[in-house]
Amino acid sequence: MRTRAAVAVQAGKPLEIMEVNLEGPRAGEVMVEIRATGICHTDEFTLSGADPEGQFPAILGHEGAGVVVEVGAGVTSVKPGDHVIPLYTPECRACPSCLSQKTNLCTAIRATQGQGVMPDGTSRFSTLDGDPILHYMGCSTFSNYTVLPEIAVAKVRQDAPFDKICYIGCGVTTGIGAVINTAKVEIGAKAVVFGLGGIGLNVIQGLRLAGAGMIIGVDLNPAKKAMAERFGMTHFLNPSEVDNVVAEIVNMTKTPFDQIGGADYSFDCTGNVQVMRDALECTHRGWGQSIIIGVAPAGAEIATRPFQLVTGRVWKGTAFGGARGRTDVPKIVDWYMDGKIEIDPMITHTLTLDEINKGFDLMHAGESIRSVVLY
Amino acid sequence: MRTRAAVAVQAGKPLEIMEVNLEGPRAGEVMVEIRATGICHTDEFTLSGADPEGQFPAILGHEGAGVVVEVGAGVTSVKPGDHVIPLYTPECRACPSCLSQKTNLCTAIRATQGQGVMPDGTSRFSTLDGDPILHYMGCSTFSNYTVLPEIAVAKVRQDAPFDKICYIGCGVTTGIGAVINTAKVEIGAKAVVFGLGGIGLNVIQGLRLAGAGMIIGVDLNPAKKAMAERFGMTHFLNPSEVDNVVAEIVNMTKTPFDQIGGADYSFDCTGNVQVMRDALECTHRGWGQSIIIGVAPAGAEIATRPFQLVTGRVWKGTAFGGARGRTDVPKIVDWYMDGKIEIDPMITHTLTLDEINKGFDLMHAGESIRSVVLY
Ligand SMILES: [Zn+2]
Ligand SMILES: [Zn+2]
Ligand SMILES: [Zn+2]
Ligand SMILES: [Zn+2]
Repeated sequence: MRTRAAVAVQAGKPLEIMEVNLEGPRAGEVMVEIRATGICHTDEFTLSGADPEGQFPAILGHEGAGVVVEVGAGVTSVKPGDHVIPLYTPECRACPSCLSQKTNLCTAIRATQGQGVMPDGTSRFSTLDGDPILHYMGCSTFSNYTVLPEIAVAKVRQDAPFDKICYIGCGVTTGIGAVINTAKVEIGAKAVVFGLGGIGLNVIQGLRLAGAGMIIGVDLNPAKKAMAERFGMTHFLNPSEVDNVVAEIVNMTKTPFDQIGGADYSFDCTGNVQVMRDALECTHRGWGQSIIIGVAPAGAEIATRPFQLVTGRVWKGTAFGGARGRTDVPKIVDWYMDGKIEIDPMITHTLTLDEINKGFDLMHAGESIRSVVLY
Repeated sequence: MRTRAAVAVQAGKPLEIMEVNLEGPRAGEVMVEIRATGICHTDEFTLSGADPEGQFPAILGHEGAGVVVEVGAGVTSVKPGDHVIPLYTPECRACPSCLSQKTNLCTAIRATQGQGVMPDGTSRFSTLDGDPILHYMGCSTFSNYTVLPEIAVAKVRQDAPFDKICYIGCGVTTGIGAVINTAKVEIGAKAVVFGLGGIGLNVIQGLRLAGAGMIIGVDLNPAKKAMAERFGMTHFLNPSEVDNVVAEIVNMTKTPFDQIGGADYSFDCTGNVQVMRDALECTHRGWGQSIIIGVAPAGAEIATRPFQLVTGRVWKGTAFGGARGRTDVPKIVDWYMDGKIEIDPMITHTLTLDEINKGFDLMHAGESIRSVVLY
């Protein structure tokens, strides 16, 4: 069949909107009509050419929501008409990683997904001339129709709006999951969030959901303060206004009883390795945990004195918020529908597929939290 | 009163054996007759002058065992005649750290201990001329009699031999505790231990106690192999015999089912920051945990790409094996007396106080695992 898609023809060039060929689902695959997709920094990272593993031509996009239209042989967990969210982190429930019960990083299709092809080694997308176009993060939601492995779709309730829950396919789950699954923040905890973009806001609402007692947001841009407060931030810190952000956080978290100070948990949502160091070092001696969420530039390294760890701090990271997609994503959709979490204020712009490059412009200009393309 | 002690008069000089004055215990303090003390790399680190916080003159030594001979006002948990192990990490059970139930790093007397004095700010030791001599790590077990805060002694059973259980005051608890308290290793886990000195051997026997399925020891010195096997090492790896120690460990830990490979847990007992990096990076994607035990040179930093953490590895450290001294040390003494752990083969040399400098020579020459001074 044919479908309309925004194709990343080469690094550093705008996406090109065109008709492409899409083959039907093979065994273990499903075809999904994408109804809405977010535009994420990760798409931009690849499109810009900064991603050393980026390949072209490809159909980007990984934060979608849509409807199953066809299933291949052997598919049992979804059927045409089911509403689904594509998963760039699949959940096969059979590989060593899934069975470990210690990680969400399913490895069943990792190799082929990284190569931009389906698990059988081929792409379902091609140009009208028949030249292959690669998949991206196993999702390719910048195409109106796409094909995914069955293990890479989460079936969700039918009354949830596509243009909001598409964001659960990436940023919402990443931020909230980092709090709940990776850090396991407890009621009353003191937490610091570095970077108040989309991920940071979702970490903040995850902290609110978990009952954190103090939620300090750190950002160089004071314009981020109001929205962060709306999502639950209790204290704002602008690093440009203090001598030493670590010392400031340690002071802010002291109590008359606890004169050591330090955050119980910190989250880096900046991708800046120096900020990652501050995030670790501002946590509490003895038990502070720092979670890296942001993606650092290729080759960048984090560093600290080992004394920071020997005195009880723990350095962790998270991918897709430690969430098992097929199991956890439907629950997060429920939380949204129940009003436990908010998404609507973060969807700042809605575009058509033809306007998709404008979404990248808005991101560059810092004017959007999330732009969503509605098909 | 007077007591015999080995005094660190200045950095880089041998200890001097002399009579010193010792004041009796003040409120909340106890006087202990030390019956045996180990000689540890930490004593050597300070004596050498490499420790930036080292102060002189001082009475070093922190791995002791002995008998309470006198208690100060208000002391309720021990009485004269009780057998005790001094604790360089005290357990007050009342400070924010102790009450957190998340760390063993009691902070009740941290500041004064670091200054080489008792909690009231003064030293109990002085020269026969009346000049003060500093305490060390709150213990000063290189003196036949010493004074400690009540919260810094663990009461232990009376049938345990002083010349063996003194080692529980440092290396035994550090190594076994890193496995049990910090890593919480589970039955069947695959673990790697970098550095097969005294701490490494104790990590290995901790892993055996925890039921680890694969215990890989890594050391440049093949002479360490036999003793490590005696304590439970199942595989030995000499980094000088392979191209890449990380890749080698990943391969060794692969199974027909799990072709990703990597250790579930790794422990650095070397203090070398490059080894610390290898120890992290050889752990399993998704859930590997690396525990830093070794003490790095002043100013040295650890580094890695954040991707290592984002893909699920956890970087931790441990001090005194995460053990709460007054609570956990008596249990470890029981484990020794019950034959669950071994100490005897690690006590390779027994010396008199007059021979104490020979213990440092043996350490430098790599001829001892542990030398113990018997009073
Ligand atoms: Zn994304
Ligand atoms: Zn899997
Ligand atoms: Zn020691
Ligand atoms: Zn305490």
